[in-house]
Amino acid sequence: ALIAVLPGDGIGPEVVGQGTRLLRAVAERFGHSFEMAEVPMGGVAIDLTGSPLPAETLALCQRSDAVLLGAVGGPKWDPPAKVRPEQGLLELRKALGLYANLRPVAPFPALYDASSLKPEVLRGVDLLVVRELTGGIYFGEKRRDEHQAFDACVYTVEEVVRVVRAAASLARTRRKRLTSVDKANVLETSRLWRAVTERVVREEFPDVELKHLLVDACAMHLIKRPVDFDVIVTENMFGDILTDEAAMLSGSIGMLPSASLGADRRGLYEPIHGSAPDIAGRGVANPYGTLLSVAMLLRHSLGLEQEARQVEAAVAASIEAGALTADLAPSGTRPMGTQEIGTAV
Amino acid sequence: ALIAVLPGDGIGPEVVGQGTRLLRAVAERFGHSFEMAEVPMGGVAIDLTGSPLPAETLALCQRSDAVLLGAVGGPKWDPPAKVRPEQGLLELRKALGLYANLRPVAPFPALYDASSLKPEVLRGVDLLVVRELTGGIYFGEKRRDEHQAFDACVYTVEEVVRVVRAAASLARTRRKRLTSVDKANVLETSRLWRAVTERVVREEFPDVELKHLLVDACAMHLIKRPVDFDVIVTENMFGDILTDEAAMLSGSIGMLPSASLGADRRGLYEPIHGSAPDIAGRGVANPYGTLLSVAMLLRHSLGLEQEARQVEAAVAASIEAGALTADLAPSGTRPMGTQEIGTAV
Ligand SMILES: CC(C)[C@H](C(=O)O)[C@@H](O)C(=O)O
Ligand SMILES: CC(C)[C@H](C(=O)O)[C@@H](O)C(=O)O
Repeated sequence: ALIAVLPGDGIGPEVVGQGTRLLRAVAERFGHSFEMAEVPMGGVAIDLTGSPLPAETLALCQRSDAVLLGAVGGPKWDPPAKVRPEQGLLELRKALGLYANLRPVAPFPALYDASSLKPEVLRGVDLLVVRELTGGIYFGEKRRDEHQAFDACVYTVEEVVRVVRAAASLARTRRKRLTSVDKANVLETSRLWRAVTERVVREEFPDVELKHLLVDACAMHLIKRPVDFDVIVTENMFGDILTDEAAMLSGSIGMLPSASLGADRRGLYEPIHGSAPDIAGRGVANPYGTLLSVAMLLRHSLGLEQEARQVEAAVAASIEAGALTADLAPSGTRPMGTQEIGTAV
Repeated sequence: ALIAVLPGDGIGPEVVGQGTRLLRAVAERFGHSFEMAEVPMGGVAIDLTGSPLPAETLALCQRSDAVLLGAVGGPKWDPPAKVRPEQGLLELRKALGLYANLRPVAPFPALYDASSLKPEVLRGVDLLVVRELTGGIYFGEKRRDEHQAFDACVYTVEEVVRVVRAAASLARTRRKRLTSVDKANVLETSRLWRAVTERVVREEFPDVELKHLLVDACAMHLIKRPVDFDVIVTENMFGDILTDEAAMLSGSIGMLPSASLGADRRGLYEPIHGSAPDIAGRGVANPYGTLLSVAMLLRHSLGLEQEARQVEAAVAASIEAGALTADLAPSGTRPMGTQEIGTAV
């Protein structure tokens, strides 16, 4: 299997370094051969080539079975800069047709202390957000003049159908409960979203229980009773906000993996945290989100379910054993470095 | 002073009943005369007149010094219904030019137990969200055909200027820290928002410290370290989501008041909770959000600062004394009814 490796900016290279190390360990242990090719993306690619997604990077990703990404962005390329790292990420998601972004949240009991939520709220939480990733206001027309700015939010029936199918299929492998999140009392795109979701689930997934929730109510519910959720499906912007919020259940945004999938098996795997320029280069970044993303890569793109489970078990064991980076370590204990965690896993 | 009273739907009439009772008590105690006129709005107005905001209701609001609103909406008028209660609320905000929606969040220590956040996260939290209320994707053009749906998000420079001025002025009366929340790495409207905010604060409020935060990061930060925030200013949709999230800090969405203000003193005051059809008519709804909205009404529209403080002190005392509705009362204690709370205050 060919895996494109895009370390990106900030702490990206550090966490991805542990991800590739883990991939090599899995290959060796289970007798697979993974070919890994590292290419520039994001700010580092802007500096090298002027573009956040150079043609060779995109071409490699298109030839690959899976893409492993660190993080992109940093103050150096912030607006008002015209060419920005995130554009590369958005372009890549779009070019690979990765319309379904899976963000699971299942807090480890050993990390309840690190969360700002009470342990009784966290107990039993195991939810999966499926975020639409290539449509909505992210990719609509944009305009600006001296007086005003404009962003279009568009959803087609087909865009909603395919991501709802992906989410309902996943719900079927879990507790069979799907919550669709929208703002149907205000947005036309949300009313379309709701109608299409209703139809797809009723016709194709009669065994899946569907509920609709307004995005504001969901932002509340996620903190009040997160255990109620199984699979959540929502549009691009709402998914962006709700998953960062949900990340707080797990103690640190550094814990969370993600998979971005399309019509075939190829996927893009990245921790959901950002490039954290403030701690970059110091070897203290939390690599668990990347290591768990590697597990998702093994599962979804390479079909290696058993290997994926072993990685998840190793991560869980290492967390329960107290191998924690500075974002998680209780005060008074010695936090581990990025590399040490990799070794522990 | 003339106060338009719009009880609305669901629990609206119950909580507003305690609000008007409180207004009468304040009038008596301090020797004011408040004229209160009750008119239909929302679902109840649809049933009576076919329109969620009948012309007479709007006309009364326009003649009033302040509007006190309960809540609107309910399953009876949910989509796919074409005429819906929320349209009345959106129209009213727009018609009265209420562009700045103030939503303070300052959890009462006696309610820390009721929140899903840990007490150490809640301690000292005193933040105010100023949400833009008459622009953005809420009011942009909307279209739908069989294949797709479309919502336009537009912001003009002037719309950003006035709400940022309102927020920065409020920051000046507090801890002088302003956080502007946007999604400038993706949206053109956010880039305009950021540039205008930067200019207005630098030129007109050099004594106010301004920070920018992406909406996803803010959704995280609100749970992780809410004590860091003083005043937050943001666009309409982000404000909707973030304030419902922030409401969870206070133990129950039933606690939170809001004021919607425009260019002059007239304002609309409403608790931020919804119409809660599931508990309507049972006399158990939490009226504190409405009572605190009455305090904001006294302060912002009637200029009665001292009276506002007395109301706030009475609410705080009654909460500390354990006068709590079912959404807040610890298990094993007897929850009070809506009316009893009104009496206690
Ligand atoms: C970097 C940014 C464009 C991106 C997004 O908003 O999609 C990020 O926040 C994410 O969630 O992956
Ligand atoms: C009822 C709805 C249209 C409204 C909004 O989204 O503004 C409500 O959620 C609020 O926050 O006041």
